[in-house]
Amino acid sequence: MREEFQADLTEVSRLLVTMAESVRGALRKATTALLTADLEAAESVIQRDTEVDTLRQQVETKVADIIVRQAPVASDLRRAITALHISADLERMGDLAEHVAKTAARRHPSPAVPAELRPVFKGMAEVADQMAEKITNVLVHPDAGLAGELEKDDDAIDDLERQLFKIMLADDWPYGAETAIDGALLGRFYERYADHAVNISEHTIYLITGEPASAQQD
Amino acid sequence: MREEFQADLTEVSRLLVTMAESVRGALRKATTALLTADLEAAESVIQRDTEVDTLRQQVETKVADIIVRQAPVASDLRRAITALHISADLERMGDLAEHVAKTAARRHPSPAVPAELRPVFKGMAEVADQMAEKITNVLVHPDAGLAGELEKDDDAIDDLERQLFKIMLADDWPYGAETAIDGALLGRFYERYADHAVNISEHTIYLITGEPASAQQD
Repeated sequence: MREEFQADLTEVSRLLVTMAESVRGALRKATTALLTADLEAAESVIQRDTEVDTLRQQVETKVADIIVRQAPVASDLRRAITALHISADLERMGDLAEHVAKTAARRHPSPAVPAELRPVFKGMAEVADQMAEKITNVLVHPDAGLAGELEKDDDAIDDLERQLFKIMLADDWPYGAETAIDGALLGRFYERYADHAVNISEHTIYLITGEPASAQQD
Repeated sequence: MREEFQADLTEVSRLLVTMAESVRGALRKATTALLTADLEAAESVIQRDTEVDTLRQQVETKVADIIVRQAPVASDLRRAITALHISADLERMGDLAEHVAKTAARRHPSPAVPAELRPVFKGMAEVADQMAEKITNVLVHPDAGLAGELEKDDDAIDDLERQLFKIMLADDWPYGAETAIDGALLGRFYERYADHAVNISEHTIYLITGEPASAQQD
């Protein structure tokens, strides 16, 4: 029974890996759309967001099925429920990638991001992409060290967001309110994407090992 | 057993009502802080956000306890799980109220919102407050009609957000990038608060009646 339960959770985490790969791909493509004013890439991200929503439904159904069949108690039950939190965070990451794509599509054929801001967004996107990759790895091999790295990545994203604001709030900012508003909202989308990734890494350690992530940190 | 399960869910919904009242109070006070540059109000919202987080923990513990004791299956199990989604949405509404309060605190003693934008934010706050009140009512007396009203309220919030952008993007906008950025992010906080309220009303109808909200709409 115990082994069967563990096997069931492994199956759920495989669904979560598929979701994580999907939201990683979505943000990569949305960033391309944003930085190169690529309408086709933007539209593909917008169309494909329902795939992530469908996967979340599958996770919910699978978890309900495990709870009914295995009747887990105490920490096992909480581990099963944790999978629901992870899938909710992943779905939201997909939504945020879609928001980036929609901003790119709305401003097309103009670029939504002026040249001065492009390096900062490139940086945010690269760190966010590494975070999504680490989530996938943590879901396959629980590693509290890797989960700890995500906290540092999140700090890097916050630093980049501060740089972004510094550029837009400088006295010689030449682009006016509209570009500043888009820049601020886009910065927030990447920052929230990273926040959800941190949540997921903490939940994942618990899902897979049954130990709270914080107790495992060095 | 069946009656006991229903009584357990009613107890969970009472906890959710307490959360809903708390996040309603938080946004009211955060709006006061925002529109009157009231630092004390802002700090009180920031300090009290942990109360909502604690209530969410209580909901999670209570739901896990119900699942273990009652071993609900099929739609009953999904109803119990729905309470977790509602508490997650409520916690996020509390976070968003806190973001409004933090913006007010950061700009204090200056007002974060110039006179031109104050009527729009007052409007958004009023609709958001009505939405939080309706959630509380739906949690006590499931009413699909009331849940339907929340969709219309959400449209009203979206209209107000469009007005907000229109003012900030006008050629004669006199306040520059910083105030526009704050305005855009604040608009998003109220809009997201409303989105979570809509999610909750849909989940609540299911939690209390076991019927999907959409099937009950007129």
